[in-house]
Amino acid sequence: MEIPEMKVREFVDEVASKSPTPGGGAVGATVAALGAALIEMVANLTIGKKGYEDYEAEMERIVAESEYRRKRLLESADDDIKAFDEVMKAFKLPKNTSEEKEERKKVLQESLKKACEVPYELAREISKLCPLAESVSKFGNKNAKSDAESAVALLEAAFSCALANVEINLKSIKDPEFVSSMREAVLELKGKVDKCVANCKQN
Amino acid sequence: MEIPEMKVREFVDEVASKSPTPGGGAVGATVAALGAALIEMVANLTIGKKGYEDYEAEMERIVAESEYRRKRLLESADDDIKAFDEVMKAFKLPKNTSEEKEERKKVLQESLKKACEVPYELAREISKLCPLAESVSKFGNKNAKSDAESAVALLEAAFSCALANVEINLKSIKDPEFVSSMREAVLELKGKVDKCVANCKQN
Repeated sequence: MEIPEMKVREFVDEVASKSPTPGGGAVGATVAALGAALIEMVANLTIGKKGYEDYEAEMERIVAESEYRRKRLLESADDDIKAFDEVMKAFKLPKNTSEEKEERKKVLQESLKKACEVPYELAREISKLCPLAESVSKFGNKNAKSDAESAVALLEAAFSCALANVEINLKSIKDPEFVSSMREAVLELKGKVDKCVANCKQN
Repeated sequence: MEIPEMKVREFVDEVASKSPTPGGGAVGATVAALGAALIEMVANLTIGKKGYEDYEAEMERIVAESEYRRKRLLESADDDIKAFDEVMKAFKLPKNTSEEKEERKKVLQESLKKACEVPYELAREISKLCPLAESVSKFGNKNAKSDAESAVALLEAAFSCALANVEINLKSIKDPEFVSSMREAVLELKGKVDKCVANCKQN
């Protein structure tokens, strides 16, 4: 069953089980979706409230964008599981002849790159949510301050989950160009997210 | 419907809605349960693995304790909603006569204390999970390193959710003794959690 359709209890049970999936990647995507949902809630609780008239249009925009992003994030929660399964399948390919060995190596490396790209995409999605979190932290309903703070903490954690999953797969990739360009891309995202999180915490 | 029985998609939708509950407190408890589940998974993936024989008993203990704690955490996810509802109910009490005003003030203050105690309990539960996270970070299966790192990030975020919810309720509490003893208790937990998180990140 796909994660969005599982009961919360079932999902937690599945994570805890002996099976390596769903793991940190899938959980990270789900937690990012929860972070986006909290941003949306704070924006919803700001719209129509006295004293917040100046931010009405901005909050309407945030509701629309965070709704779009949380749905995408939740749909992507299973991507990490699929990518991991492909790596496992590649590991099980035969390696009796030199042709088989070569083929196995190629398929494995491709599957590892994909397993890097899935959490990288998650990290990129989270980086796009950060400015929304900053906006609700600054201009959102002060009665929902704890929810805005919670949203920021969840995005930060989900970003850490994503980076940990990029990093663990990078370790097995033999293509130095892929590795260095992925590391550079991740560092760029991390710079953005760290800055945004610091701005949120000033409010 | 209670959170553990909701589908993941429904839960995310509920968080995003105009209603202030479920908010950061309920989400924090759920994310803490997911953190505990990842700890349990890493321990599960360590048991019976070559090279980890020395940690077998420790990992068995961690599986048992994190299972117990994640179930409690998930069961507690709705407590925050109930506590918030009591505060809202108190706000709506009549305040026409001085007796009514006095009674309303009393009930409101009691409900706010309860609304502080629920996230404080969450913070306390998370502080008990931290040593388990430290153990799987140090001694757990290195192939699941990203999952151990994800678990730590989630506990840290859930702890922030809990503290934000304690703090926002403390602001409306007029009993200086309650406020100072709660702040002290929170600071003590924060010291423990911060230290544990720093230790985890060294691995």
